[in-house]
Amino acid sequence: MGTLHFTKGHGTGNDFILFADPGGEQSLSAEKLAMLADRHFGIGADGIIRAVRSRNLLDGAASLEEDPDAEWFMDYYNADGSVAEMCGNGIRVFTRYLLDEGLVTLEPGETLPIGTRAGVRDVQSNRSGFQVDLGHWRLTGAEPLVRARNLPVARPGLGLEVGTPHVVVALAGDDELDSLDLGTAPQLDPAPVSGANIEFVVPADPLVKDGIGRIRMRVHERGVGETLSCGTGAAAAALATRHWAGAGAPDHWRVSVPGGTVAVRAFRAEEGERVALSGPAELVFKGEFAIPD
Amino acid sequence: MGTLHFTKGHGTGNDFILFADPGGEQSLSAEKLAMLADRHFGIGADGIIRAVRSRNLLDGAASLEEDPDAEWFMDYYNADGSVAEMCGNGIRVFTRYLLDEGLVTLEPGETLPIGTRAGVRDVQSNRSGFQVDLGHWRLTGAEPLVRARNLPVARPGLGLEVGTPHVVVALAGDDELDSLDLGTAPQLDPAPVSGANIEFVVPADPLVKDGIGRIRMRVHERGVGETLSCGTGAAAAALATRHWAGAGAPDHWRVSVPGGTVAVRAFRAEEGERVALSGPAELVFKGEFAIPD
Repeated sequence: MGTLHFTKGHGTGNDFILFADPGGEQSLSAEKLAMLADRHFGIGADGIIRAVRSRNLLDGAASLEEDPDAEWFMDYYNADGSVAEMCGNGIRVFTRYLLDEGLVTLEPGETLPIGTRAGVRDVQSNRSGFQVDLGHWRLTGAEPLVRARNLPVARPGLGLEVGTPHVVVALAGDDELDSLDLGTAPQLDPAPVSGANIEFVVPADPLVKDGIGRIRMRVHERGVGETLSCGTGAAAAALATRHWAGAGAPDHWRVSVPGGTVAVRAFRAEEGERVALSGPAELVFKGEFAIPD
Repeated sequence: MGTLHFTKGHGTGNDFILFADPGGEQSLSAEKLAMLADRHFGIGADGIIRAVRSRNLLDGAASLEEDPDAEWFMDYYNADGSVAEMCGNGIRVFTRYLLDEGLVTLEPGETLPIGTRAGVRDVQSNRSGFQVDLGHWRLTGAEPLVRARNLPVARPGLGLEVGTPHVVVALAGDDELDSLDLGTAPQLDPAPVSGANIEFVVPADPLVKDGIGRIRMRVHERGVGETLSCGTGAAAAALATRHWAGAGAPDHWRVSVPGGTVAVRAFRAEEGERVALSGPAELVFKGEFAIPD
């Protein structure tokens, strides 16, 4: 296998190992990906992103047919080596990486389409970093009971699909959010077949200020554990809170996560409503890892 | 400051950022060290080790006068940026790093003296990796009560000094060790002024096999949290268990930690008994980090 040249980056503390494989030849086993993501024996990250030129994809994700302009595909893996459809923080860091490596250009006002397993996603640069169109979202209709450590009683969750499946739970206040122990996975009843990311949210006081909704959130990601941030989770949390707040609730939201702040915007489009996520994207260091055979 | 060229390594999962500063010119603030050690926003590690040529040390650790042959000094910092005297896993990884960088040579049977804040330590290569003479050890006389999450009752601990201060606690069995929650720091009563690493141990069944004592251990390191391994802690745990086992207990011990296995050996020497630690040392990857001003 040889040497892996990688870059480490993060978006609001949600961190990734990125590497370029334009020709789509450097497919790694789940075992090796998990080794890379291990924080003590490997490099350490919440996720691993391989940059592959879309035309060289062997697994031929169907969504690529939607937009032949998506030159690059974000081949995303969770820390345990499993495949993930999309990652709202990851795609911003992926964009920063493509720019840093000189693989794309992106002027203000331009749109960069990026291929993902959840479909093509449009990215634009903005003041905070990048904005990503996460596409259509929907309520799944599921309202499972959620149990978590240090949560005194089970609470009803709201199921949403934002590229990935989410369950959002409203908590009573900051104390309850802070004392929550997400070191062990929360339990969902009934449990979704393929799991879900679970977001716990608390409204700010007041909930809406200057026309912008404001919430705090912590998240447990399936296959990872608690993370400092989850982009699609922040979108799900904002959309769920707007749903609960009812008519007149704003379309713009600011979501505080343990690793920073992201912005969520819902907007009307053809075939229903879409949601966009904005936030920072930083590259931290470059490295070389000798992959064992 | 510019670019930091570093290597990441680990000994039984206890992981370190290492960099060479032969001239002793690249002293980093506690804040910057903590930033490097951060697992999401930085590189991530339990500790940071700067390799400085002893003669270029500005703070002139007194112990260096003991042995003018210690060409290299292990300038060790905890993940929070605080100074530490010694690290039993770190010094093996430090040795591997010096060898890998071509800064020292070490043939089988040879001894490499390394300067540390706890005095000069002798390192030899062996089959498992490296053996380190941790020097004299002693019972401190302290027997504080130890409280930890998921530990049903407070237990008496045994205070030992092995370069760094330790408190060792015997648990009832594997179940108790596995269910222990070290996500929050255990409480010591009375609390030592400068803190202590706390080791929880369980004997194997039988305790002694083929003349070798066998224990399992988990550790909470002051200034770090739970780690996968702690070298001086493994030595403290073995010595405490031998103390409790009484006359006839062996001098050779095998200590299973969450990140692997290390060996501990007590041996008579001038001015009392000394203790040596053996275990693996691996380098994982090299990187470049742009340090902000």
